[in-house]
Amino acid sequence: MSNLYDLAYDLENALRNSEDFQTLKDSYAKVNADPEAKKMFDEFRTIQMGLQQKQMSGEQITQEEVEKAQALFQSVQQNEVISTLMNTEQRMSVTISDLNKIITKPLEELYGPMADEKQQ
Amino acid sequence: MSNLYDLAYDLENALRNSEDFQTLKDSYAKVNADPEAKKMFDEFRTIQMGLQQKQMSGEQITQEEVEKAQALFQSVQQNEVISTLMNTEQRMSVTISDLNKIITKPLEELYGPMADEKQQ
Ligand SMILES: [Ca+2]
Ligand SMILES: [Ca+2]
Repeated sequence: MSNLYDLAYDLENALRNSEDFQTLKDSYAKVNADPEAKKMFDEFRTIQMGLQQKQMSGEQITQEEVEKAQALFQSVQQNEVISTLMNTEQRMSVTISDLNKIITKPLEELYGPMADEKQQ
Repeated sequence: MSNLYDLAYDLENALRNSEDFQTLKDSYAKVNADPEAKKMFDEFRTIQMGLQQKQMSGEQITQEEVEKAQALFQSVQQNEVISTLMNTEQRMSVTISDLNKIITKPLEELYGPMADEKQQ
């Protein structure tokens, strides 16, 4: 199955050379070089991850926590570099998810009908 | 980024035509056509998934449950079609995981150092 791996390396290369990846890399470098931006971004990420973990473990998220995250989100969005970074991350995440769906479609076709059967 | 999607479709096609995928498809068809094998396989899958869910939610798995799963695993392994199916699934799962690692390496390189930083 070496052909599969060759194609995966081609895809890796295309991803690495894509405009979105280059933008992502540049924005990260800029955020990391700006202590003020980095602090704000890290704080937002920490709170975001904390909320996601709470959500996954089924813990209750308080109104106060939601408001704090929203306020922080609004300040990070006002920083142009962070805003570019976050929008590009969002687009990259959709792209990766699309690529995954395409590549694993044969397996989805094979397992999908079985999964449907089980739900009945 | 249409090139990315073209390459993903090439990879999908290669996966679909791979020997492992064809074996997987054939073995599934054979198991589904054999009521006795299908029943045994479904029972094993159900128990396996139940144990995985318990593990993920941090619930205790009893010695009795482990032994039941092991006994069932030994009987399904003795069925040649199911055994081929399970071994091929295992290999396919490794392949998919390898492909994913290759494709997302640029992102891993970008985020990896940040993740390491956080652990310090
Ligand atoms: Ca600044
Ligand atoms: Ca039989």
